[in-house]
Amino acid sequence: MTEAEARERAAAMLADAGIVLTPAEREAIEVADFGLGRLEEIGLQIVVYVNTERVCAKELVLFPRQMCPEHRHPPAGGDPGKEETFRVRRGEVLLSVAGDDIVLRAGDQHTIPPDTLHWFRAGDEGAIVSEFSTRSRDESDVFTDPQIVR
Amino acid sequence: MTEAEARERAAAMLADAGIVLTPAEREAIEVADFGLGRLEEIGLQIVVYVNTERVCAKELVLFPRQMCPEHRHPPAGGDPGKEETFRVRRGEVLLSVAGDDIVLRAGDQHTIPPDTLHWFRAGDEGAIVSEFSTRSRDESDVFTDPQIVR
Repeated sequence: MTEAEARERAAAMLADAGIVLTPAEREAIEVADFGLGRLEEIGLQIVVYVNTERVCAKELVLFPRQMCPEHRHPPAGGDPGKEETFRVRRGEVLLSVAGDDIVLRAGDQHTIPPDTLHWFRAGDEGAIVSEFSTRSRDESDVFTDPQIVR
Repeated sequence: MTEAEARERAAAMLADAGIVLTPAEREAIEVADFGLGRLEEIGLQIVVYVNTERVCAKELVLFPRQMCPEHRHPPAGGDPGKEETFRVRRGEVLLSVAGDDIVLRAGDQHTIPPDTLHWFRAGDEGAIVSEFSTRSRDESDVFTDPQIVR
């Protein structure tokens, strides 16, 4: 799957869920393969609605069985680290936080404290997850797999 | 319209938009008439997903032509005041920020800085608005109309 194909597929999943994007937002969907080149297995499609100094909101789109690999958001420059709430809108997600596995379905949510190791993977239908958080600083994220480049 | 009727109507609008709530969230929908007793004209229905020290996310449901009256979120206890991004999911909203009138339709959004006067009103179809913000402290809000009790 090319990046363009992933972007189109994510846009279709969002549209199916009734989530309205502007044409510019559809064009700007971020496709992250974490530098591993195995997007369908390890990857994430992201719509960033807003990312100010204080608040960030995104939609995360996961294809069936697609996984976001283990990482944490450490303190950076006076900020205690990113705090994230994941709310599942469609599909099912296995969220692993500090070793605890939590299954989230549409309408379920979980808040992840700063600097806490976590990973997540969609079930067989894929998933759409709203993320509500403090500022995103992807360049500060620490991944467990040293091969990952964000 | 009673509070229970408003809650039920808001839940139906959210379901129509494909927004999944848990039964507990449906029961807990806040119906705010701002102490004025004219809910259908001046009021708001609110689902609070999360409200931590740092981040808040809500869905706001507005019935046709329903209005949230002018207010601001001043600094409070070391916090510079609430920063809000409104993203319209369904319907049309007239958002007035510091005297500028902005029309937002599904997929449109606007960020309101702290301590800035604003009000908003839904169009003829009503509206659903996602709010992404710093911590909500309703008790600190300053409304222009002195009769309002939040």
